[in-house]
Formats: sequence, C-alpha cells, structure tokens
Amino acid sequence: MQKRIPDSLSPDAAWNILASHPPLQIETRSIDDALHFCLAENFSAPENLPASPRSFMDGFAVRALDVARVPARLKKSSEVLMGEMPDRALMPGEAMPIPTGGFLPAGSDAVVMQEETESAGMEVIVNRAVSVNENVQVIGEDFKKDHRIFPAGHRLRPQDLSVIAAFGVTQIRVIRRPKIFIISTGNELVPFSATAGPAQIRETNSLALRNAAEKFGFHAESTGIIPDEMQAQQRAMSDAIQQSEVILVSGGSSVGVRDLTLEVIESFTPHEVYFHGLAIRPGNPTIFARASSSWIFGLPGQPVSSLFVFYQFVLPFLFHIAGEKIDYSSFHEMRFQSVNAKLNKAVKPLKAKTDYLRVKLERAAEEWAAEPVLGKSASLSTLALADGFAILPPGEEVMPEGSLLKVYLFP
Amino acid sequence: MQKRIPDSLSPDAAWNILASHPPLQIETRSIDDALHFCLAENFSAPENLPASPRSFMDGFAVRALDVARVPARLKKSSEVLMGEMPDRALMPGEAMPIPTGGFLPAGSDAVVMQEETESAGMEVIVNRAVSVNENVQVIGEDFKKDHRIFPAGHRLRPQDLSVIAAFGVTQIRVIRRPKIFIISTGNELVPFSATAGPAQIRETNSLALRNAAEKFGFHAESTGIIPDEMQAQQRAMSDAIQQSEVILVSGGSSVGVRDLTLEVIESFTPHEVYFHGLAIRPGNPTIFARASSSWIFGLPGQPVSSLFVFYQFVLPFLFHIAGEKIDYSSFHEMRFQSVNAKLNKAVKPLKAKTDYLRVKLERAAEEWAAEPVLGKSASLSTLALADGFAILPPGEEVMPEGSLLKVYLFP
Repeated sequence: MQKRIPDSLSPDAAWNILASHPPLQIETRSIDDALHFCLAENFSAPENLPASPRSFMDGFAVRALDVARVPARLKKSSEVLMGEMPDRALMPGEAMPIPTGGFLPAGSDAVVMQEETESAGMEVIVNRAVSVNENVQVIGEDFKKDHRIFPAGHRLRPQDLSVIAAFGVTQIRVIRRPKIFIISTGNELVPFSATAGPAQIRETNSLALRNAAEKFGFHAESTGIIPDEMQAQQRAMSDAIQQSEVILVSGGSSVGVRDLTLEVIESFTPHEVYFHGLAIRPGNPTIFARASSSWIFGLPGQPVSSLFVFYQFVLPFLFHIAGEKIDYSSFHEMRFQSVNAKLNKAVKPLKAKTDYLRVKLERAAEEWAAEPVLGKSASLSTLALADGFAILPPGEEVMPEGSLLKVYLFP
Repeated sequence: MQKRIPDSLSPDAAWNILASHPPLQIETRSIDDALHFCLAENFSAPENLPASPRSFMDGFAVRALDVARVPARLKKSSEVLMGEMPDRALMPGEAMPIPTGGFLPAGSDAVVMQEETESAGMEVIVNRAVSVNENVQVIGEDFKKDHRIFPAGHRLRPQDLSVIAAFGVTQIRVIRRPKIFIISTGNELVPFSATAGPAQIRETNSLALRNAAEKFGFHAESTGIIPDEMQAQQRAMSDAIQQSEVILVSGGSSVGVRDLTLEVIESFTPHEVYFHGLAIRPGNPTIFARASSSWIFGLPGQPVSSLFVFYQFVLPFLFHIAGEKIDYSSFHEMRFQSVNAKLNKAVKPLKAKTDYLRVKLERAAEEWAAEPVLGKSASLSTLALADGFAILPPGEEVMPEGSLLKVYLFP
C-alpha cells in the first residue's frame, strides 16, 4: 500500500493553526508608499481639521446678527483669497466675498451663499437670513484633535493615506509585509520560455502564484526550477529562507516517492510541521510548516490545486502576518468579488471534504446562472474556463438545479 | 446669480458617452508582464495539451486487455521517469511503474493505481481491472489544438498567464493600458509633506487617486500642485498631454470664478467637451472632455467627490479603453467586493440625483448592518469612517430601517 496523507484538517481547523502565528515586525514607512500596509498603532488626529473655520460655499462671510432681518444691506469689503488668511477682521455691517474653501475672517460667523445676494455698487443686499455657522465648516468639524481615526491593525486604503497626509504626517509605523519566494520542483519541468521535450512540462505555477500575490499587493519572487533531489532542494530552501519570510514550494507535497518537501523541511533546525493534509478538493496534500526562520507552504504541483490553496489559505495567512485581523468566516466575502448565481445543474457535495467548485457564469435576465466546470486538478482548462468558485462544505445532500450559490470571482 | 452646472446626466447616460470612445492601440507584451491586460485577439490552443498521454496516478502502465481478468500477474518492467519519454514500448503481459504525471509508454493504454496492486518479486499482481484510458489524461484532454481558449478582449488573470505559458507562448498581443497623469489645482494647496500656513490645505487628492488606480493595476503620476492661473494650468496640461492618454484634473471643475478647468480645456485645439455635470452626489461638477490627444476628467476638488467620481466613472473608462467589455449594470458587482447589509436607519434617496451613500458596516449574528455615514463631501472623515458605499437611484420613497442594501467595499 502507498502511504497516505496523514491527517485531513477542515478549512476552519487549518485556519485556526495559521492564525495562531504572530504578525511580522513593525517598520516605519513613507505615506507615499504605504498602500495595503496595516497600522502598527492607533492613528489619532494630531490637530483639529480644519484648524480654522472655512466656507462651504462661494458667497459672503458675514455676522449672522447683521442679516437676521432681510433684506439687509452690508458694506462689501475686500475679498478673502484662497490660501491666504484674511488680512483684516470683519467689522459689524460688513460682508466679505469668500470662495468655497476660503477661511473665515475674524469677526464673521456665517456665510451667505452668492445666490442669496444682490450686488449694489459698494454694497451687498442679502436676501436670506443665516444662522451662526451656516455654510461654515467649523474648527475640528472634520477631525477633532486626539480623536482616534484608525485603530491599530487597520489596513490602509487609498483614502486613508489621504486622511493621514492631510495632517502633514509623512511617516507611519506599520506591520511589515512578508517577502515571498516560490520554489518550483519537478524533474519533468522546464521554464515556459524554453523548448520542451516530448515528456517535459512547461513550469507555469510560479507565474500564476506570483501574479495572484501581486493582485493583492504582495510581491513574490521565484527561484526557478529545482529537480527532485534532496540536496538541490535543501540548497534552494536554504537560499529562500535567507531572503523571505514565506516560502511556497510548488510540487512534492504529497507522499509519493518523488515527494520530498516534507523531508526537506525536516532537515532544517529548528523545524515544525503544523499540518499535512487538508480535507479539501482540490488541494488535499498541502503542508504548512516552519523551517529555520521561515514559514513554508508545501503546495500540490497540480495547477488547480496550487492556485486554490493559495487563495484559500496562503492569502489569508499573508494578510494575517501583515497585521490584519481576519475573520475567516467572512474572508472570501471581504476579499473576493462575489455574485449570487443559480446552479444550472444539480451538484453533489463531497462526503468528507470541502469542495471548491469551479463555475462558469452566464448572465440571463438580470440573474447569474452558474455552470459547474468539471475536470481534474491537473487540468489548466478548468481554470481558463471558470469565472469563479463556490465553496461547498462536506455533505450528503444533492444541491438541486436552481439552488442559489455564492460565487467568488477569480481575481 | 452664480453660473450653474449646465446639464446633469444620469450615470447610465454618462457611461454611454464614456463607452463610445475607442480602445487604445495594440502592443506586444511578454507574458511575464501581462497581468490585467486584455487580449487584442482570440487565443487558441497552438497544440494539443498534453501532447502525449499522461498518468493521473502513481501506479503501473498496462494494457487494459491484460488486466481484464483479475487477479492478473504481469511482468514488472523498468520504470517510467519524470521528464523522460519511456525508452521502450510496453510488451503484452508487462506492467511498467509510472509516477503521477509520467508519460505512458507506447503499447500501454491504461494505468492501474499502486493501491490496487501487490508486488511479487519481479512480478506485479493487479487486483482490479481497468478500462482503456482509465487514470490517463489522453492527448488533447486539457486543450485540443486550435480550440479557442480566450476571446479577444479577455482580461488576463493570474491563471490565464499560466495557461498561455503552458503552450510555450511568451509574447502576446494585448490592448495597451493608459498612462494617467494627475494635475492638482488650487492656490490654497501645499504638498502634504510641506509646512502648511494657517490658510493652506495639504494636497492629498492625488495620493488617494494614484493609489486607487494602483489598486486596479493602473499607474498614475502626479504633476504636483498648479495654481489657479490660466497659463500655469495650460502649461501643466500641455505637458501632461505629451505623456499620458488620460488626465485627471483635481479641482476647478465647477463654475466658480476660480474654476478654470473648462477654460483650459477649451484653449486646446482640437478639443471637445462631452459632458459637464452629473446627476450624482457627491461628484456633480464633473467634466469629461478631450484636449488635443488626451482624454480629460475634470474632477471636483472635494476629496469625497473626487474619489467617488474616480471609482464610478474614471475606473470603468480606464478598463474600457484598455480593451475590456464593461457591462455598466454589473460593473460594481464585478469589480468591488460586496456584501448585503440591512440599513440600521431609514434613508431618503435624492429626488433627482443618484446618491452614493457611504456606510459603515457592523457584523451582528452572521448578518451585516449598514450605518449611513453622513457628512459633506469636503469631509475626509466620512471616507475614513466608511467601509463602503451603496448606490441609491433617484427616488421619492424613503428606504425604511431594515431595508436590504448592496454595499460595495472601498478597495
């Protein structure tokens, strides 16, 4: 009898193991280059924003008291210029022209909209009363000094960089993001740009993995192809450990004669194998381990399996060690586009494994129909054809045609 | 009376105008650097994949005829090695050890799984009959030569690069992706890294826009801050036209005295203004035009408006001119993560404008609750606080508390 994958964890159990690992260290980064990073500490407003009251409208800065009775005639004073503080205070009975975003002169407490006024030589006739602070963004209205804006662990989105930069903060403390190395193993592999002999296969898993990482803002490098020999693989892993926190070994994760990943990991000191074998399809023979100072994922060599394990387990782990709080139950919903679709044929879940069912979507009358894409995990064609995947937990009951399915789109 | 935005198009009408523009030219790219690009032509399989039959299992290559009656005793022959074509054909009565992925020797037509056999010295006892092609990936099973795999216009995902590379194709013809320049205008603005005077504002829109573009694989550069002066703005736009196909002018898109964007556009030959004014909030004073050889978006200077117009209109336009077929009715669903959430307070849509309602999400008992984030479009705080947005078409009817809302997450 052949050896078998020793234990088969459920996705949730595997996630609990992955999530028990600590995040990476803290570093200081320029706000110019901090997209995707997670804050290492709370970010609170270092000052009031705006620091002085500003007008929301093109119009006239006035004293509300002066326009309590309308029409009111006020004396037109010199205008407020953008980017400059008014050089004099507003006197009672005056109206000072002010543009949207202009800062209010001392003595004024409201803005009358241009549309509510008439010009009369040196005077302005105001036709509508305003209350104090009307059309005004008051001090601290956008952010009050010391108010906590983002909690530690918050992942920085494009607008968040704006918010932080608006205070003149240009350096922030964030959790590092992992460097990733991909080791492709297999005697049958040649680089995809090389001429392949009749029994050789072009190596393309590293291309898919590298680009999948890039889609989520991670950077992965590839060592090239390593043959199925202990020494060569040990050397490749040793090099990768020097340069990266996370290593993806493509191929060799099962228990066949040529499957060396586990043995290679076990030759490092220290090492620990956290799991080997997941109750999923595709992707069952997956290894998660630590060798020396790096985390190692042993990924199946089949292209479909490799990509699925990346999206289901490696990706949330990368987010996690980069400091993000991941709720695995909503991970897919929060990180993949999704549509609700109706199965166009019955599907039977697997008895004891979570099935990542590939589906092709078709739009019909404002609804999506999901057509299961069948095929083995060695088939690149299923990845080419499918628009996304659904997650079917283990079960006995057939999902009839017409069942509603949440379909996550391939990024 | 102040001038008003001349016409106010619905989002769909604006999209029809945007989508009427032609895509960019075709270029040839390395498959190594083609993520996000759209194919300029159909991609069909240049050869059968696999080119020879391969084993799906660790086991023995046999003739199905030889194991029709089991147990069957076969003579064990020398094994098939990965990456090498078997050096001899299988003779009747023989079984040849073969690993998963190994190529079948001539004369064999099926594979018996290791688990279904016993070793008996120089012989193998097969305990289960197999049919022809069982456990075998036959020639062309993954892709048949000349079969169209991807249509022209298909956007390349990580796995699609693998598929193309698997055929040894390293160069492909794709539609170019636009270069983008951001011009930030406003006398009140200073770079966010500079010391801001009391009436100055740190310029941060370009940071948000640049990073929002990057999230979707586009690259945008920024000219820095240009004052509200015709000559300076003309010069900046002229420079940007030399270097980019799409120019985003931040600020100056409305009809105030300081709003120069339209006038600047009209000073170029040729030029055409396609629309000015959208029936949306935030983002009403938006311009779409062409000046000389570039497309110009005049974006409102308010941070919230600027980012919303980018996600709602600029982004799908960028995809469109990069060759992708966009169905605007499903654009948000296909390109933003989304969750269904229940409004936790009543909301009234706008009478005549589409409202991009910012909401904060809270998870309660496996459901999402959406809390509207109110605030003016000058408020960065609404962008900091909100997790996403819902699209409320114009209407009269209040959406009661508990209404189901599709919430698109900020990327």
